[in-house]
Amino acid sequence: MSLDISLLLDLVGVFFFAVSGSLLAARKGFDLIGSVLLGSMAGLGGGVVRDVILNQGPPAAFSNPIYLVPALVASALVYFTLKNVRRSGRLLLMFDAGGLALFCVTGTLKALDAGMNPGAGILLGVTTAVGGGILRDITANEVPSVFDPKDLYAIPAFIGAALASGLWQLGWLNLFTGGAAAAVVFLLRILSLRYGWHAPLAARSWTPRKAGRG
Amino acid sequence: MSLDISLLLDLVGVFFFAVSGSLLAARKGFDLIGSVLLGSMAGLGGGVVRDVILNQGPPAAFSNPIYLVPALVASALVYFTLKNVRRSGRLLLMFDAGGLALFCVTGTLKALDAGMNPGAGILLGVTTAVGGGILRDITANEVPSVFDPKDLYAIPAFIGAALASGLWQLGWLNLFTGGAAAAVVFLLRILSLRYGWHAPLAARSWTPRKAGRG
Amino acid sequence: MSLDISLLLDLVGVFFFAVSGSLLAARKGFDLIGSVLLGSMAGLGGGVVRDVILNQGPPAAFSNPIYLVPALVASALVYFTLKNVRRSGRLLLMFDAGGLALFCVTGTLKALDAGMNPGAGILLGVTTAVGGGILRDITANEVPSVFDPKDLYAIPAFIGAALASGLWQLGWLNLFTGGAAAAVVFLLRILSLRYGWHAPLAARSWTPRKAGRG
Repeated sequence: MSLDISLLLDLVGVFFFAVSGSLLAARKGFDLIGSVLLGSMAGLGGGVVRDVILNQGPPAAFSNPIYLVPALVASALVYFTLKNVRRSGRLLLMFDAGGLALFCVTGTLKALDAGMNPGAGILLGVTTAVGGGILRDITANEVPSVFDPKDLYAIPAFIGAALASGLWQLGWLNLFTGGAAAAVVFLLRILSLRYGWHAPLAARSWTPRKAGRG
Repeated sequence: MSLDISLLLDLVGVFFFAVSGSLLAARKGFDLIGSVLLGSMAGLGGGVVRDVILNQGPPAAFSNPIYLVPALVASALVYFTLKNVRRSGRLLLMFDAGGLALFCVTGTLKALDAGMNPGAGILLGVTTAVGGGILRDITANEVPSVFDPKDLYAIPAFIGAALASGLWQLGWLNLFTGGAAAAVVFLLRILSLRYGWHAPLAARSWTPRKAGRG
Repeated sequence: MSLDISLLLDLVGVFFFAVSGSLLAARKGFDLIGSVLLGSMAGLGGGVVRDVILNQGPPAAFSNPIYLVPALVASALVYFTLKNVRRSGRLLLMFDAGGLALFCVTGTLKALDAGMNPGAGILLGVTTAVGGGILRDITANEVPSVFDPKDLYAIPAFIGAALASGLWQLGWLNLFTGGAAAAVVFLLRILSLRYGWHAPLAARSWTPRKAGRG
């Protein structure tokens, strides 16, 4: 996949996550500056964590100013077009899913291009994909949505990162195959939300809280 | 601006933010060690994030032990002199504003000295200035004060970073002009608190929660 | 201390902290994937922060896949063996104490091996030891246990890091002395929990909240 196409997909991913951050800022009653900040944290956070871990110079988000554009556009868009803040939850999940789908592919690709082995590439791809959302939710003082036990979040990202790593090793990674991998991730995430697909709880013995002392 | 003066301003900024962290620790009922930890996180966190992003060796706070002194002094000061914990909110905001004012100037300067371009310098200056407070509040499980929609926080920091970047490019940055830029930031922040200056909300359509279902 | 032994102690520390993360995931009602994520964050977070600060290439947790094994084993163990989620609090504290004890020693050692001075080594050892637990608790939206004023947490870690640094400088650090330092830390932490040893509060003037307005 050429660098230009990779950058383009990355910027679209930044935009999707930035919209999710700006929507959360709107829901929490933050102001427009808080919207830009939370959108930037969601959109750029995962990539900054990845680049800090790769340890090859300053993160792209700081050395290349174009990364700020999608974050600013996202805040403006939410400011001018959001009709109903209280019903924006589903919208937030959609944009978050879009960012997740693109970042697990581009994050893996960046790690592999930086010389990491395939396993570490998958790990960094997943970190990129879930990192921005975790930073967004922690900063807004919410339990990160990756921990919501009612649907799948990290598993689709892992599948997407593994697909991207496999395609890259075979030399088959291009805009179409990369986009298809991202589409699979997006679809899995959305279907898990729609049909309540979920993983088992962390403890097999866990039972829901009953009335009385607990 | 000579390195000594820059270090001095930086240490004063660390002290201001460390006091804000120690005051928050006192308000939350943490112990003296928690006060040192939260003060260090507030005072050193923004600079550590900046230095990690600059990626030029270990952060100053870890390689230069003098950075721990203001954090320890701040905790001791709060321990011995704070009279009324519950009324310390205004004091916290004052010291936080002082740290914000100094860090947006010294953070920008450090980034420019490290070879970043002016735009990235401003971005890193703002990151340095707001980073410590965000880490402090996240760690104490509070919504970061940068997101408080009732006053201005990031905008004064941005103005200060832009002023510092401009002065640096013109070769006019010295103790007086740098101090003046910091004073402007401090004043803007305090006036916004005093007169309720604030930015528009993240969503134009947002209306306050009314009685009944929301 | 040879690299193999150091790696072994480090992996045991990762396992202990990962169990604490998986137990917290179980208590919060997260799913098995959330358990792996929170366990990894607790087990690997402190070391990743240390390695990012040391700035000598990608963190070990990302370049050496063996670091994922204890995190996966911990989640599986909690999933299959945990009998009573609601009473797992004490278990969590035990495993957390084990991780703390090992990480303040191995973290200091890694920092000294990377060429940091003894003071910075102690600082990074404490950061490694408390970092994973702070990340775990912040991510799960809890006040980090390092701030609990009812017992000692950072002080045992500091003592362990200082012991490790002293032993290293004297050339006396081996599996036995390192293990003994870790045992001292573990014992101090457990005794502080058992007997309520604690540090003074952050503000001398603080008094518990009384009835009426506060």
